[in-house]
Amino acid sequence: MAAPKKVVLAYSGGLDTSIILKWLQTEYDCEVVTFTADLGQGEELDPARKKAELLGIKPENIFIEDVREEFVRDFVFPMFRANAVYEGLYLLGTSIARPLISKRLVEIAKETGADAVAHGATGKGNDQVRFELSAYALDPEIKVIAPWREWDLSSRTKLLAFAEENQIPIAKDKRGEAPFSVDANLLHTSSEGKVLEDPAQEAPDYVYQRTVNPEDAPETPEFIEITYSKGDPVALNGEEKTPAEMLTALNELGGKHGIGRLDLVEGRYVGMKSRGVYETPGGTIMLEAHRGIESITLDRGAAHLKDELMPKYAELIYNGYWYSPEREMLQALIDQSQTHVNGVVRVKLYKGSVNTVARWSDDSLYSEQHVTFEDDAGAYDQADAAGFIKINALRLKLLAARNNR
Amino acid sequence: MAAPKKVVLAYSGGLDTSIILKWLQTEYDCEVVTFTADLGQGEELDPARKKAELLGIKPENIFIEDVREEFVRDFVFPMFRANAVYEGLYLLGTSIARPLISKRLVEIAKETGADAVAHGATGKGNDQVRFELSAYALDPEIKVIAPWREWDLSSRTKLLAFAEENQIPIAKDKRGEAPFSVDANLLHTSSEGKVLEDPAQEAPDYVYQRTVNPEDAPETPEFIEITYSKGDPVALNGEEKTPAEMLTALNELGGKHGIGRLDLVEGRYVGMKSRGVYETPGGTIMLEAHRGIESITLDRGAAHLKDELMPKYAELIYNGYWYSPEREMLQALIDQSQTHVNGVVRVKLYKGSVNTVARWSDDSLYSEQHVTFEDDAGAYDQADAAGFIKINALRLKLLAARNNR
Amino acid sequence: MAAPKKVVLAYSGGLDTSIILKWLQTEYDCEVVTFTADLGQGEELDPARKKAELLGIKPENIFIEDVREEFVRDFVFPMFRANAVYEGLYLLGTSIARPLISKRLVEIAKETGADAVAHGATGKGNDQVRFELSAYALDPEIKVIAPWREWDLSSRTKLLAFAEENQIPIAKDKRGEAPFSVDANLLHTSSEGKVLEDPAQEAPDYVYQRTVNPEDAPETPEFIEITYSKGDPVALNGEEKTPAEMLTALNELGGKHGIGRLDLVEGRYVGMKSRGVYETPGGTIMLEAHRGIESITLDRGAAHLKDELMPKYAELIYNGYWYSPEREMLQALIDQSQTHVNGVVRVKLYKGSVNTVARWSDDSLYSEQHVTFEDDAGAYDQADAAGFIKINALRLKLLAARNNR
Amino acid sequence: MAAPKKVVLAYSGGLDTSIILKWLQTEYDCEVVTFTADLGQGEELDPARKKAELLGIKPENIFIEDVREEFVRDFVFPMFRANAVYEGLYLLGTSIARPLISKRLVEIAKETGADAVAHGATGKGNDQVRFELSAYALDPEIKVIAPWREWDLSSRTKLLAFAEENQIPIAKDKRGEAPFSVDANLLHTSSEGKVLEDPAQEAPDYVYQRTVNPEDAPETPEFIEITYSKGDPVALNGEEKTPAEMLTALNELGGKHGIGRLDLVEGRYVGMKSRGVYETPGGTIMLEAHRGIESITLDRGAAHLKDELMPKYAELIYNGYWYSPEREMLQALIDQSQTHVNGVVRVKLYKGSVNTVARWSDDSLYSEQHVTFEDDAGAYDQADAAGFIKINALRLKLLAARNNR
Repeated sequence: MAAPKKVVLAYSGGLDTSIILKWLQTEYDCEVVTFTADLGQGEELDPARKKAELLGIKPENIFIEDVREEFVRDFVFPMFRANAVYEGLYLLGTSIARPLISKRLVEIAKETGADAVAHGATGKGNDQVRFELSAYALDPEIKVIAPWREWDLSSRTKLLAFAEENQIPIAKDKRGEAPFSVDANLLHTSSEGKVLEDPAQEAPDYVYQRTVNPEDAPETPEFIEITYSKGDPVALNGEEKTPAEMLTALNELGGKHGIGRLDLVEGRYVGMKSRGVYETPGGTIMLEAHRGIESITLDRGAAHLKDELMPKYAELIYNGYWYSPEREMLQALIDQSQTHVNGVVRVKLYKGSVNTVARWSDDSLYSEQHVTFEDDAGAYDQADAAGFIKINALRLKLLAARNNR
Repeated sequence: MAAPKKVVLAYSGGLDTSIILKWLQTEYDCEVVTFTADLGQGEELDPARKKAELLGIKPENIFIEDVREEFVRDFVFPMFRANAVYEGLYLLGTSIARPLISKRLVEIAKETGADAVAHGATGKGNDQVRFELSAYALDPEIKVIAPWREWDLSSRTKLLAFAEENQIPIAKDKRGEAPFSVDANLLHTSSEGKVLEDPAQEAPDYVYQRTVNPEDAPETPEFIEITYSKGDPVALNGEEKTPAEMLTALNELGGKHGIGRLDLVEGRYVGMKSRGVYETPGGTIMLEAHRGIESITLDRGAAHLKDELMPKYAELIYNGYWYSPEREMLQALIDQSQTHVNGVVRVKLYKGSVNTVARWSDDSLYSEQHVTFEDDAGAYDQADAAGFIKINALRLKLLAARNNR
Repeated sequence: MAAPKKVVLAYSGGLDTSIILKWLQTEYDCEVVTFTADLGQGEELDPARKKAELLGIKPENIFIEDVREEFVRDFVFPMFRANAVYEGLYLLGTSIARPLISKRLVEIAKETGADAVAHGATGKGNDQVRFELSAYALDPEIKVIAPWREWDLSSRTKLLAFAEENQIPIAKDKRGEAPFSVDANLLHTSSEGKVLEDPAQEAPDYVYQRTVNPEDAPETPEFIEITYSKGDPVALNGEEKTPAEMLTALNELGGKHGIGRLDLVEGRYVGMKSRGVYETPGGTIMLEAHRGIESITLDRGAAHLKDELMPKYAELIYNGYWYSPEREMLQALIDQSQTHVNGVVRVKLYKGSVNTVARWSDDSLYSEQHVTFEDDAGAYDQADAAGFIKINALRLKLLAARNNR
Repeated sequence: MAAPKKVVLAYSGGLDTSIILKWLQTEYDCEVVTFTADLGQGEELDPARKKAELLGIKPENIFIEDVREEFVRDFVFPMFRANAVYEGLYLLGTSIARPLISKRLVEIAKETGADAVAHGATGKGNDQVRFELSAYALDPEIKVIAPWREWDLSSRTKLLAFAEENQIPIAKDKRGEAPFSVDANLLHTSSEGKVLEDPAQEAPDYVYQRTVNPEDAPETPEFIEITYSKGDPVALNGEEKTPAEMLTALNELGGKHGIGRLDLVEGRYVGMKSRGVYETPGGTIMLEAHRGIESITLDRGAAHLKDELMPKYAELIYNGYWYSPEREMLQALIDQSQTHVNGVVRVKLYKGSVNTVARWSDDSLYSEQHVTFEDDAGAYDQADAAGFIKINALRLKLLAARNNR
């Protein structure tokens, strides 16, 4: 790979990506463009601008953007239409943010004439894969630089030394090593590493940042109503919300009631297992509510097909294949199913739990007339069931007769 | 179908199956054999014997059996090895009991020379299908009688009149109609119908029979440790348990903490949607704990294959195909994966929630050496990741180049 | 079901459906509307009109339509985009015609104010299911009449007697019983029953109607070129064709070379196995050619996802679920994959075989530069493969280390 | 990776692996053990021993083995039980041989105290992945050396120069470059590269080595009968055969009739598409015959589950995951289905085609009594079909009613 001339860096403004910024300038003698996105991680972005300037980035090369609406509308919501859960538990909060960042990196590279993009993910994790597969899928000519896989700054000490040598300001609390590593966006906060590395040890309470301990949550349940339109939540307690407003509001509610904490061990795409602690308050509510509204508006055949394909869809997102034809094909299938997923779900929030307690819809497929224990006025002829069973049993009978021969 | 001469009836001893018993005698002038199983439904079985005698059943035709260990060992545990959940939520508590009952009905028919079996399920539900497919799969020559699909006792009034005419004792509290219908066994209690028929109405609290309201559960969490061997729970807090003992103990714990309540709308095999309220306290704990132990002992490839096949496996059980070659093929696949699913899971029970907080195993695949943020002593070469990504990206790059042409 | 007042009958003009026509008039005293479709079965439609008139059908109630283009464009081609094959062999030639007929029956019912439709399929086969599921899915209020399941004309003798009583003309060659039963349309001819009922007996040569015996096919191979656009064949040897023209031309070619004969035993949806002999000359060529063009234009991820879902898609069509949400969802997924399936395939036709021998496309993903054994000028770095393998091997190594512990 | 001390090399005795042998000695100054397997590739093995001796390999380090029976019995037959086909066409002839070779390499490494294995596959293909994943899965500590990815002998000229420098004898016909590359074993011969690199060009006839051109095949068809036991072919025309004898005999028959030629473009695991020409005469017959015997002995539910899982199973083998838990899980599922796959299939071989024409079995599920067009003596009640359809239609009706609202 020829040396890059101009690199767009996914820049948080923190110590690590500031070191990367400097290292790129030093190592490749290249121009650096910074891209700092507000994905709802809950950090001020202004300091990132100042720091970038301090590190010599030209104003026209500093991109700071609020992408929260795009994030929720074009990534989070489509994913929740699928009820996507990885390995039965993980709501993919980190996975789903990477494609958006890569997309903007590649777009900014085009705008600014850059020939490379760079990210701060390590060589052991999934994020490097997600960033890079997305970038290559969007621009097959782009170079991707992953400093953590290249440099020799392999210890905290070396990193800090490099920062000091290069006049990179080090916040006091960053001197010592963080007791675990954090990633956050509007969908979730994930924590992993260090104190969390032994899965036989319970995660200390200070790891949780976004949700109260269920024991400290309110003593009384709270009931909310979420309105769905074509599979997406559009109103909360009757009040319309944009996608990011919706997720923000649900996060607040979930956080308050201790909802969405998850402590798990997952199988990384790069082959090892890792332990993570996730907080997905709003997402956990959305998963439950979406299933609730689908339960009355989605046909059984459609629902079961979605269920069978969900693990593959979730795996694709987890593994970084958002921009792959197979993810897009599955999305087409899923979206097609959501046309009538409209209505209202009432959920109960209480000390860590979220449960659907009621649901209604003008598009409901639930037919009290058919299901009733009472007289159904001929809607359903029980005699049909006999034929249904007989025909379904035929192959089993032939089989039993054969096996008994 | 020629009239049956001797019928084995799944007999609970309750009013409805007593009416069926009498109706069979009357309608077909046939000998009736009763089979009453203790599946852990929490009812005395002695009264069933007395009632059967009262209705003229010969002592040698009365079969009363405690099948709880068989139920949990051969049906519940194999199903939980698959993490089976129907439509994302339902733990299949009713579905899984039906094949065992059918199996004993057919076996008793053989022992007693009966040519038919009978059950008390209605023509609108799934249970008729489960009973009958199982029976036909086990004995292709057996006749199955489903009185609810045949008789004209289509209202409560008519049923009670028939009971009175035939000297069937009617318990006082059975005069009025039950406000909902209940099925129970060691795995769960389900409630449906009547007051639950409107899914837009929250289920009244008196529906729940086996779990306390989370609001009334203890204020302090309880932590328990479950030991797994080949995918099955074998010890609780270090104390060995038989399968039924294990489920009984977990039910008690779950019930006390308000765990396992579920209010949902499901798609029945016979085509309509129905609303059910389920309580599966021990099962809900087992599902979480099994996932916990699999998370460290099951390879990613194995786990993902299981996840992809689970919805089909669950659907087969829900639809009544326990004794089908495809369920047995899937079971072979699942069981093969569980050889190393051994170890201990620590879960937290608190006000409706159950969460894995720690897990350990001699068969763990988790490698702190590989995953660590610290120096890994060469266990993992980050440079490999670059090649991994490049090769995985190749087809996406070729695709992007083509699409941009 | 209340008696029908006006029935739209799928009417071939043959003896059987003429008897049905009369029977409907007699049995229900209802007005009959006839629908006769040219699906490419190779029969004159004019006699059907005359016969219908003879049987007293009012001119405005006689619908005779050439639906060949619609059949191929909206049913056959979408199905071939999926490479749909049932049970590894059957190209679904009968299955795919039924939904179109039902659609027109229901539409004509609406136009003419009829409240019922009727078909001539028996109670043992798949066609009844296909006709009726389609009809109900398109109009949930429609009545469907299946005379073969209702009447007592259960033998050939009774049928002929009924015909004679009712002055239905009986062609001479219909007096005796046909040695097998035939269904035909532009996609295929199927033969089953009678002389074919023993699957241990080779099908006699006179069963085949549309293809020559490969032994009698030309001694020299013929090469043809099929041009694809978005997954559909649009030109033959450079000459543009409409869908029906294309299939007609391929049928001729295939028939001449003895291509597309199939003798199999299949699992019917109604539970029994049946033996069928199929001739699908053009379809067999299309399947091979479509795979050929996909092989260079479809990404591996997309292709494998299609392959995994194909059996379910084929099963849905076979079982009669064309108008189901799950079939439509799968179609959305499949169609999404075909955008770039453009190009030309050259196939060789010779004595029963069709084989792709060359394929090219402006949308090709095949990169000689990457795959070459020669110097690839850096297009592919073989060192990347080492990392790719190492990372993919990691979980297997951890597993082996664990299993050896 | 520390330098290897003793390496087991997959050694064919040909020029390329002889160069590798020498290169290993030179590059690593290590002891070399050679393993030469007779997989049915049709080459003498004696010369390999002489050449190895000539290159200084100690007699106790030369392993020459006939593994044909093991190959067919433990690899080919299990795979054919699945009807495995990659991308709709490829019978996996190369893929299935690699795991066996790796297994023996690793076993010999253990016997001889070697710490590494080496193979002659290039860095662009699938075989490197198959060799290495298998080796790592069997011994996580083994080192694998892939000289083609390491050395700088990147052109034919350099290779020949190296050979001459090192006194490696060069057969006259190896001076010039082969016009394409070949791999062969008892299951198939594959050819790729060079003259085959342009998929728009028809493969020249001299590429085919194992099958006659269909045009040159006998003018009269040949009929053979294959007896199956538990899914494996065990007798040909009534004569019992060992696995390797069976495949050998079918290869001869297939080759004579021009059966099993395949010209395709496939998606490699390493991301590019490649064009290959395959000849699998016996395998093509086995696939057809196995489907034939399954068609009468395998239940529909079992068959369809197998069909749905086959693409994933084939992909696993193609990608090199024979020794993965997921392949083994799928194998358990498949093998479980084959218990009753017993009987005889009669197939017709003629000018490139193989077609089942008859099949019979004591374990047949085909019931003439049920399927007959004649009077079935009550085996099947057509009225049942009405109920079957009504119940299956219910959800579609509810859906249509909803969608029309």
